[in-house]
Amino acid sequence: ERVNKMLEKKKELGGGEEKPGKFVLKTGKGTRDYGPAQSALRNSVLQNVVETFNKYGAETIDTPVFELRDVLMGKYGEEGGKLVYDLQDQGGELLSLRYDLTVPFARYLAMNKITNITRYQIAKVYRRDQPVMSRGRYREFYQCDFDIAGQYDLMLPEAECLGIVNELLTKLEIGEFFINLNHRLILEGMFAVSGISPKDFKTICSSVDKLDKTPWAEVEEEMIKEKFLTKEQTSKLGELVRFRELNSNLNNLELLEKMSALPELGQNEKFKKGAEELKVLIGYLEVDGVTTVRYEPSLARGLDYYTGAIYEAVAPKALEGTAAEKAEDTAGQPVGVGSVAAGGRYDGLVNMFDSKLKVPCCGVSFGIERLFAIMEARQKSAVRTTQTEVYVASAQKNMVIERKKLLRTLRAAGIKSEMPLKANPKLLTQFQYAEERRIPLVVLIGERELQEGIVKLRNVVSREEKDVPLDSLVSTIRDTLAAL
Amino acid sequence: ERVNKMLEKKKELGGGEEKPGKFVLKTGKGTRDYGPAQSALRNSVLQNVVETFNKYGAETIDTPVFELRDVLMGKYGEEGGKLVYDLQDQGGELLSLRYDLTVPFARYLAMNKITNITRYQIAKVYRRDQPVMSRGRYREFYQCDFDIAGQYDLMLPEAECLGIVNELLTKLEIGEFFINLNHRLILEGMFAVSGISPKDFKTICSSVDKLDKTPWAEVEEEMIKEKFLTKEQTSKLGELVRFRELNSNLNNLELLEKMSALPELGQNEKFKKGAEELKVLIGYLEVDGVTTVRYEPSLARGLDYYTGAIYEAVAPKALEGTAAEKAEDTAGQPVGVGSVAAGGRYDGLVNMFDSKLKVPCCGVSFGIERLFAIMEARQKSAVRTTQTEVYVASAQKNMVIERKKLLRTLRAAGIKSEMPLKANPKLLTQFQYAEERRIPLVVLIGERELQEGIVKLRNVVSREEKDVPLDSLVSTIRDTLAAL
Repeated sequence: ERVNKMLEKKKELGGGEEKPGKFVLKTGKGTRDYGPAQSALRNSVLQNVVETFNKYGAETIDTPVFELRDVLMGKYGEEGGKLVYDLQDQGGELLSLRYDLTVPFARYLAMNKITNITRYQIAKVYRRDQPVMSRGRYREFYQCDFDIAGQYDLMLPEAECLGIVNELLTKLEIGEFFINLNHRLILEGMFAVSGISPKDFKTICSSVDKLDKTPWAEVEEEMIKEKFLTKEQTSKLGELVRFRELNSNLNNLELLEKMSALPELGQNEKFKKGAEELKVLIGYLEVDGVTTVRYEPSLARGLDYYTGAIYEAVAPKALEGTAAEKAEDTAGQPVGVGSVAAGGRYDGLVNMFDSKLKVPCCGVSFGIERLFAIMEARQKSAVRTTQTEVYVASAQKNMVIERKKLLRTLRAAGIKSEMPLKANPKLLTQFQYAEERRIPLVVLIGERELQEGIVKLRNVVSREEKDVPLDSLVSTIRDTLAAL
Repeated sequence: ERVNKMLEKKKELGGGEEKPGKFVLKTGKGTRDYGPAQSALRNSVLQNVVETFNKYGAETIDTPVFELRDVLMGKYGEEGGKLVYDLQDQGGELLSLRYDLTVPFARYLAMNKITNITRYQIAKVYRRDQPVMSRGRYREFYQCDFDIAGQYDLMLPEAECLGIVNELLTKLEIGEFFINLNHRLILEGMFAVSGISPKDFKTICSSVDKLDKTPWAEVEEEMIKEKFLTKEQTSKLGELVRFRELNSNLNNLELLEKMSALPELGQNEKFKKGAEELKVLIGYLEVDGVTTVRYEPSLARGLDYYTGAIYEAVAPKALEGTAAEKAEDTAGQPVGVGSVAAGGRYDGLVNMFDSKLKVPCCGVSFGIERLFAIMEARQKSAVRTTQTEVYVASAQKNMVIERKKLLRTLRAAGIKSEMPLKANPKLLTQFQYAEERRIPLVVLIGERELQEGIVKLRNVVSREEKDVPLDSLVSTIRDTLAAL
């Protein structure tokens, strides 16, 4: 009976593909290997990410993959907390895999009493979520976080974060994207004038946040039936959180102005403060040339720790026209991948670890796995998986020592080079290998040529060959590579 | 009583620093954060590693941080198996953190039926070992693995692996190092002629492997008292495994020749095969110019899966004369960090996952954490933690918009630049920031200058300033940076 119960639970949790007793060769549910082609693509994306972070003056840090369980507990809300992977108690400390990079960052600041740092961190995080691999939703996935910690002036750090989002998404050519922007105090103000109790803040946020994918009628029904709001409350709230939708002709500042002019909301202190702050930010973004930001009063991100501006970048059409769009399990869903970057201000998180330490922070996290999925789908030609410049081949048998000697010369000169690891490889096989791997040059050695002190240098694409004296081989190769 | 038992167990396992009930701000035992300075150093080391792997034609892959428990089980011997971190059973699959990158690599090959790949992988692995942080021994640490899988000719892959070890350790300037070399069949042969039963192979290996740190008398005593060998057996074995020590005037080939001339050992089929193979390898290494390899019959690496040549690089004096040498907890120990790279041939591992698939493999894994510890100790000047080229400062108040405009121009031109995120920063503070961060240039804007269309460009080191017209600022900065 206990076994049955366990099997049932297993099935429920969705991890039950494996047959008991039979060893199945697979990776853990919701995780995947990156083969050479995927790794090469991923590394080229990550290189862009790192370059952008460096351009904005960030340092980098790294933290362990697991944290003491107490560090993570109570930071992600009820929903998030359930998704944390715990390590088994094998004696010693109770540990959990990190759920994001923000809480470990705050722990790092508090532990080292750092009050001032602009850092990025690129690392994998872990969530026991329901995976949707075709859309880049995994249980193990990369996050690329950029955060500014320190006492700075109003909205200047936020402008840097949004500048990075705008610059990186533009650079990656993922297609049209928007950065939705809102403010926690604006949400609190709208809820207050709708007569919603502060204790319902989180749960109503989670309903409102669905408005990007779900029609208002459904969201309203959920709030009435499951969260026990009255029709009066939801009507009022609906007019406010749908303000952009209902006034689609207005720009960001006009929307804020018009909301500020509403008799009740315009008098709410929280709303006023939030709206004033966003106006400052929107002003800065104009100076910075960031035109993709969209004030969206229905944006209500789930995490507990945000205290000010919040933002989320979406690329709703990023997969349009790609093979991924036609994939079975995306049928009927919008042709996007959800949020590709998100963040906000969290002034209280460090304080949770050290009550004497106040370190205001804001940051942004890129859902880089989703960006990989987009890049993979939109990719026109595969990235090379090696960087080999020269392949050292031989025409006759028993040339392995000669090939090795030549390889040594090339490598000593810093030229990336390989040779077949067989004593007597076939010439055609060697040429095919170089072509498949897109190695640009082949050095072909033969006994007679070596006696004369020359080798053949072959351009793999054009298949042109020329004799090159051994003593000028390195410089000829360098010139040829530079001219490719 | 149960609590007491648990506390006792906790103490026993060495993880009991935290007082129950009190929240201690720390990382998990045996793990550490990398701050900006350490990360910068680490990244510069890793860049060398990746460049070397690329130079030898490797692709890269990535695998999840955890594997199904069944994948890891039975691969690391009794000792290793105890050190695996298990994830808690939260429903679904039973998972464990990876212990190395080799077994996941073999799983990847078997799962994808890949018979041919040269790949590197750089990732963290996890062992519930007793940490010695000052010598770079952690519970979470990086491994950098390079492996050649595929049916190739004798010892050509091994020569590539040892070439990489030699090249990378030379490049990193860690001081004198050696690569000890042995062969599993030589070990088996020596044990056989000493009358040691094959079933004792592993346990006797683990004793013999201590000879690099422990005198023969102690090792012999252990084998007699704990492993029940006779004095006759150990005497015979001692003459063989200490063959280098006892014949220190001989080179690698001479040692192998002399051992091959021993009446009993020279007739042992296993020894003969192992010795023949190593002779081929030693011949190749001479052609490749790898002179740091030392045939060492006492090298007996612990992992079960090796089938042929095995090797291990050591840097016994790497910490000599550094502050780390004087650190308290290294007192009385040799001034080294143990093995900095190790590997060998493992022809049977893929086969364990797929009985129909035979993929011969050999590889090497760099204990990069130990290399970091060496680099940290030997480092003369700190690596810069940011790449910022220009700091945009202002002399007067209320210039934030002007600074932002200039910053936008610089960043649009691809120049890595920052500005103070304060409305009215002090001039001195700005100059100090640039000096501390070693940012080479400061652009200083003032109201009057802006009206005239100029800014001041300051060389932070020389403190020289010159007026530069705004419309040639970008090109002047590029020229100045190029000339630094």
